[in-house]
Amino acid sequence: MRRASERLAELGLSLPAVPIPVAAYLPATRFDDLVFTSGQLPTVDGALIATGRVGAEVSPEEAYACARTAALNALAAVADHTGDLDVITRVIKVVVYVASAPGFTSQPQVANGASELLAAVFGEAGRHARSAVGVTSLPLNAPVEVELVVEVGTMPIIRPA
Amino acid sequence: MRRASERLAELGLSLPAVPIPVAAYLPATRFDDLVFTSGQLPTVDGALIATGRVGAEVSPEEAYACARTAALNALAAVADHTGDLDVITRVIKVVVYVASAPGFTSQPQVANGASELLAAVFGEAGRHARSAVGVTSLPLNAPVEVELVVEVGTMPIIRPA
Amino acid sequence: MRRASERLAELGLSLPAVPIPVAAYLPATRFDDLVFTSGQLPTVDGALIATGRVGAEVSPEEAYACARTAALNALAAVADHTGDLDVITRVIKVVVYVASAPGFTSQPQVANGASELLAAVFGEAGRHARSAVGVTSLPLNAPVEVELVVEVGTMPIIRPA
Repeated sequence: MRRASERLAELGLSLPAVPIPVAAYLPATRFDDLVFTSGQLPTVDGALIATGRVGAEVSPEEAYACARTAALNALAAVADHTGDLDVITRVIKVVVYVASAPGFTSQPQVANGASELLAAVFGEAGRHARSAVGVTSLPLNAPVEVELVVEVGTMPIIRPA
Repeated sequence: MRRASERLAELGLSLPAVPIPVAAYLPATRFDDLVFTSGQLPTVDGALIATGRVGAEVSPEEAYACARTAALNALAAVADHTGDLDVITRVIKVVVYVASAPGFTSQPQVANGASELLAAVFGEAGRHARSAVGVTSLPLNAPVEVELVVEVGTMPIIRPA
Repeated sequence: MRRASERLAELGLSLPAVPIPVAAYLPATRFDDLVFTSGQLPTVDGALIATGRVGAEVSPEEAYACARTAALNALAAVADHTGDLDVITRVIKVVVYVASAPGFTSQPQVANGASELLAAVFGEAGRHARSAVGVTSLPLNAPVEVELVVEVGTMPIIRPA
């Protein structure tokens, strides 16, 4: 197994810059060896990649991509806080809020965009507890918001390739 | 006080098999002495016991039963992770998401289905912080989703009868 | 920097009595040095200061005040549990649920009512990770519900003025 940062590069991904919160809050905080992220939106270079409710203006496939992008932004928030993506030793909990049109109930398929990215980057250590819920609306009309709780170690985990 | 597993039996309940998540996530994860569960649905033998929104297709009474069943599934997720229900030393936090028709605002009465089960099984140690919120829709059209954070000890707690 | 309790007084605020939960749950619980609160509503003397959905019956400005009041109630829940507001060493995570009319997407501006109070009371230690989401409805038709995770120390933190 390789480092998370190496896997990310193999996936053709890189950590984005962390959006600066517009108010008195932070992208991530730490207690002991837990890092909690703020709810992250599917932005690329500061702009949402889709807007609206899933099942209406946004397709499930677009929403899957949104969950993946929001999860990548959440990883960037952790790395920005800790200085290094590779200090993540386990993903503990993921909550995926999906802005849902009435009657849309495939939140798990949307949330898989986040879960499958985390599995691809962290392998077994990326498997997490998860809640996926359908909400009325999200900030800036985002279709998806993702928050993480991850465990970090004080030293990078170096795994044999 | 008796063990949680004994109280559960006295209530005529037993822990169900834990549904296998359909994606790259787990029923529960652990950090230190905290276990976080995934959001659990009110399923029995793999099938939801009700579907729809509370205040429309689902009555508050049915939703109370759903919260109780989802909480039981969450306890099964903890026990499956730790190997034993009796290692739970305290229920820390419960979030109850209630799929709500517009205007339905009795989420606390629904959430009591989870809270009262936990009190019945764990006594004082089952009393927890709780959030109850009304959402648009939930996975598979479930009326209720329940997630837990519990404290576990390394040894079973044996209480005098 | 002054103690949180002194800052609160300077803001002309005082901690309210903690509403007694109507079921088998608690205003707050503790694990290690983390305190988790229940979702708190914008009540003053037991009555909601506004009811309805933001973007319909409730204006964003009223909702901002609701988030501030709910956050104050959450601080009261922590202080009631620990015996002292000044044992809070850091605010770790805030979730702000906003009962939202369809199309209302300014949840961050509402949530700032909580975040800015925490910054005013705790300074840098009040800056937190945050999720803000728009939900269908909340208990008692409240416009806003706020939950906190805070770090506490065993001794009050005395900061030079």
